[in-house]
Amino acid sequence: MALTFTPHSTDGAARRGTLSTAHGDIRTPAFMPVGTAATVKGMTPEAVRSLGADIILGNTYHLMLRPGAERVASLGGLHKMMNWPHPILTDSGGFQVMSLSALCKLTEEGASFQSHVDGSKHSLTPERAMEIQFLLDSNISMVLDECTPFPATHAVAKASMERSMRWAARCREAFDALHQERSESRVQSPALLPLPAGEGRGEGNPPELPNHESRTPNSGYGVFGIVQGSIYEDLRLQSVEALTAIGFDGYAIGGLAVGEGQDMMFAVLDVTMPAMPADKPRYMMGVGKPDDILGAVERGVDMFDCVIPTRSGRLARAYTSGGEVNLKNARHKDDPRPIDPNCSCYTCTHYSRAYLNHLFKADEMLGPILTSWHNLAYYQSLMQGIRDAIEAKDLGKHAANLRAGWKAGDIAPL
Amino acid sequence: MALTFTPHSTDGAARRGTLSTAHGDIRTPAFMPVGTAATVKGMTPEAVRSLGADIILGNTYHLMLRPGAERVASLGGLHKMMNWPHPILTDSGGFQVMSLSALCKLTEEGASFQSHVDGSKHSLTPERAMEIQFLLDSNISMVLDECTPFPATHAVAKASMERSMRWAARCREAFDALHQERSESRVQSPALLPLPAGEGRGEGNPPELPNHESRTPNSGYGVFGIVQGSIYEDLRLQSVEALTAIGFDGYAIGGLAVGEGQDMMFAVLDVTMPAMPADKPRYMMGVGKPDDILGAVERGVDMFDCVIPTRSGRLARAYTSGGEVNLKNARHKDDPRPIDPNCSCYTCTHYSRAYLNHLFKADEMLGPILTSWHNLAYYQSLMQGIRDAIEAKDLGKHAANLRAGWKAGDIAPL
Repeated sequence: MALTFTPHSTDGAARRGTLSTAHGDIRTPAFMPVGTAATVKGMTPEAVRSLGADIILGNTYHLMLRPGAERVASLGGLHKMMNWPHPILTDSGGFQVMSLSALCKLTEEGASFQSHVDGSKHSLTPERAMEIQFLLDSNISMVLDECTPFPATHAVAKASMERSMRWAARCREAFDALHQERSESRVQSPALLPLPAGEGRGEGNPPELPNHESRTPNSGYGVFGIVQGSIYEDLRLQSVEALTAIGFDGYAIGGLAVGEGQDMMFAVLDVTMPAMPADKPRYMMGVGKPDDILGAVERGVDMFDCVIPTRSGRLARAYTSGGEVNLKNARHKDDPRPIDPNCSCYTCTHYSRAYLNHLFKADEMLGPILTSWHNLAYYQSLMQGIRDAIEAKDLGKHAANLRAGWKAGDIAPL
Repeated sequence: MALTFTPHSTDGAARRGTLSTAHGDIRTPAFMPVGTAATVKGMTPEAVRSLGADIILGNTYHLMLRPGAERVASLGGLHKMMNWPHPILTDSGGFQVMSLSALCKLTEEGASFQSHVDGSKHSLTPERAMEIQFLLDSNISMVLDECTPFPATHAVAKASMERSMRWAARCREAFDALHQERSESRVQSPALLPLPAGEGRGEGNPPELPNHESRTPNSGYGVFGIVQGSIYEDLRLQSVEALTAIGFDGYAIGGLAVGEGQDMMFAVLDVTMPAMPADKPRYMMGVGKPDDILGAVERGVDMFDCVIPTRSGRLARAYTSGGEVNLKNARHKDDPRPIDPNCSCYTCTHYSRAYLNHLFKADEMLGPILTSWHNLAYYQSLMQGIRDAIEAKDLGKHAANLRAGWKAGDIAPL
């Protein structure tokens, strides 16, 4: 098997499962912290892992530009380079090529653009997107697609989705060729190439890598298709049909969380999810806030990624059982209480709101570090609670409790 | 005893000792990481501790302005607020009042100045400097002094030193009054005030505080005098005489590392150190680079503090057994080797120069974090090696090896 997905219990449409990769298992529903440039901002990989993350996400667009996919491969692959020996999913770069780069041009062949870093010219085709993710040694590659802008007319959304489906077929073919070639030529995964003698780690610190001796073609590696179609039910269903005809290791919902609002987002899930294969993982890209995640799990989504925990953490916004808290607010400057009295994370058991308020005012790195830490802990704790509730077939009650807490708001000032 | 210092072995002028405080013991010679604004920049306190730091330094000037000494006291003192239950030394604020603030005016009474943060007006007298450090719950307070500018004429240096000595006497008196008052009124140290019921940490996470039940007046707390006199031998000796007549728990060498150069700095140590009491710790403020520290230890200095490990770390400059390494240099971009092949720190056992080079190019927080980590590890490892060598009466050979390594320079490019 390329990737193994076992949905082992359900509660309504919600699923509790396990996705197995060459670098380990992922408990679903899963939240994937984002490590854009080969680092989850402000965190060591050990800290990210300790909070309960089974998998992180890397961004192909950023990594292809800097440090470069070939360089990552020569350094042993992304897992080894960034000291994260666990599963990694990479996006295809398409979304960020279209949102971050300059002079982006799309043709049937692919995208051409200029780097936002240094203005250098690049192209990203379905084939190159697969090659880059192969060089990164990503466990889960994503197909190159066009993230249809919102709003889009039905005609625009249809043309865009159909091209994405043609690209998806090319991606599947390229992915299989790369992994088949590796298998046949007995060229090992970049992460498995030994370092030249005398280089790198001391003998006392062997890289933590899984045992690949039993590797079969693309064993423990897979590629996900991405459902597009904007807010149009017929296009979403056509997209699912096109992707399942090709056959993928998992299916993502793309083109959401782009300004359509939560009601519209859930409406799209309501029509799309029932059509998606039940035996494959379902991944909602770039989502989201805690209540977005909860609502999507209730509709059958298995995987999420979002920059919110770390981006908000850098901006002093914390997520708690009582909703969002802005630590820069003056109400916290003498408050000896932790961010969230219900949280057992390192930040909440060691630091006061008053201290965090001080760190942000003084522009100290430790403020973003500790608040990112708490937010990632909160998100992983949210997912663990959700997984437990699904197993106990108690998600309805659990979700109501979560929502009541968020609605009640932050603890009262002293 | 206020503070207990036990110099338990020597090698030439170098001393290996233990300084005991209410919050624990300090192995000397000691390097104190700087936690200017109640945080060692980019590091958790646990990480700082794990690298071997027995004590850190806090800056009175920064803390009096933000978050404010009274606020720190109300939050339980500096140890508790910043989650560092180990010894803390605070400077008096004098040096930074004179170097950072605006419109600073010095009179016999003290200093008046405007905050560099918000322009607010403040004054700092010897008595207030002692009160602030008392409120912070500092284990080792430093007297308020004037850091004589370099160069200074003999007349200017003499007048400045003599005023600093009068301030030193006022500081000793104020320190004793504060600690005597606390003892007599049975008012506990700020760190010992219980939190109001229902606030702060959960029961499972009691603050780590030492047992103070046997506290006697200023037991485990002390105040250090500061020797001034610029580069003039007669003034330095007069300053030592004035301070020892007052009587302090330790003696610092001030007014060095201000542009006089290493030769001049060592020359001042050569004339000053033999006059200083052998039974008290000797602290060289604001020093320095590894070879400054080594030379000062050989002349009998016991304690050091410097921002170099963290400030250089943020700027991609690493200190190694082969001297300084600039990780932003393009020569590292494909180098899979660690910063220092001889270093066993977390950074060197998990990350390559190529990855660190990437992190700095991408302006990722983890670059400063990992390089600060390595630098602090290198400094603490340097001190441990020096302590071991003094105990083995082998400092001469050890120092020659260290200097040969620094002189040989960085490992050759691949």
